[in-house]
Amino acid sequence: MKNSMLPTLAAGAALATSFSALADKTDAGAIQHVLSAYETALNARDTDTIVSLYADDGVFMPQHSLPQVGRDNIRTAYDGVFMAITLDIDFQIDEIEQLSEDWAFARTRSAGAVRINATGDTGPEANQELFLFQRTEGGKWKIARYIFSTTNPPRG
Amino acid sequence: MKNSMLPTLAAGAALATSFSALADKTDAGAIQHVLSAYETALNARDTDTIVSLYADDGVFMPQHSLPQVGRDNIRTAYDGVFMAITLDIDFQIDEIEQLSEDWAFARTRSAGAVRINATGDTGPEANQELFLFQRTEGGKWKIARYIFSTTNPPRG
Repeated sequence: MKNSMLPTLAAGAALATSFSALADKTDAGAIQHVLSAYETALNARDTDTIVSLYADDGVFMPQHSLPQVGRDNIRTAYDGVFMAITLDIDFQIDEIEQLSEDWAFARTRSAGAVRINATGDTGPEANQELFLFQRTEGGKWKIARYIFSTTNPPRG
Repeated sequence: MKNSMLPTLAAGAALATSFSALADKTDAGAIQHVLSAYETALNARDTDTIVSLYADDGVFMPQHSLPQVGRDNIRTAYDGVFMAITLDIDFQIDEIEQLSEDWAFARTRSAGAVRINATGDTGPEANQELFLFQRTEGGKWKIARYIFSTTNPPRG
């Protein structure tokens, strides 16, 4: 940094604020990027990418299933989902909030269509989601806990 | 504090650690207490108590419903649930983790019976839950976000 660029004390404080705002923005952006990658991989039935978005000790809590703890179980669970159904859904972010240096959550909703692979039948799909994100050792935000539930009415 | 009790520097460091451990323990205990109060109130169809366990801007994400934001909407949602069903369930805590001074999460499962009030029919109930807790201004831990989903297989 050049001397002429050294901030005065007051300017330094402003700079600290803007760095902090930038960090916040970057973290929210990074988390949004993970959500976007998740959406794309879900619609593409791309288990490998999805598993890579989870933390090693992440937990996936799919409806109609017990919690799936750790990447091996998460992989098996998504393979099962993608055997059964094909999704075509969009996510909407209701909120992203950083809780600490290394933790954040996102609350989302998703809607679109689901096709039952065995029958080819297609129907409407609508869910709400809560994601917990953890910044892992490499500095990357990963999905640490994830649960969703349908927002559609119960079937007859 | 009596002078004779004043710690040396080394003892002070040990003391700080034990205070910190105590605080952690107390926070986990306080959160466990909220979970226990939630379980009791849910089984008692006690909307007032449940609403008091939520943060003012808390979000309740019940299955088959859009997210309910804020205490008024949360109250209406639980009143609706308790009109429809009577629960008799026990919660099991899989993990409680504090994420920062003022944020924590709990991952739980619950199981027991549900009675449909309109018909008197009773069936098995089993869910998984993710709670986000926030320490509010009064220092009390409140439910900030809460979502559950059934772990039972889909109905026929």
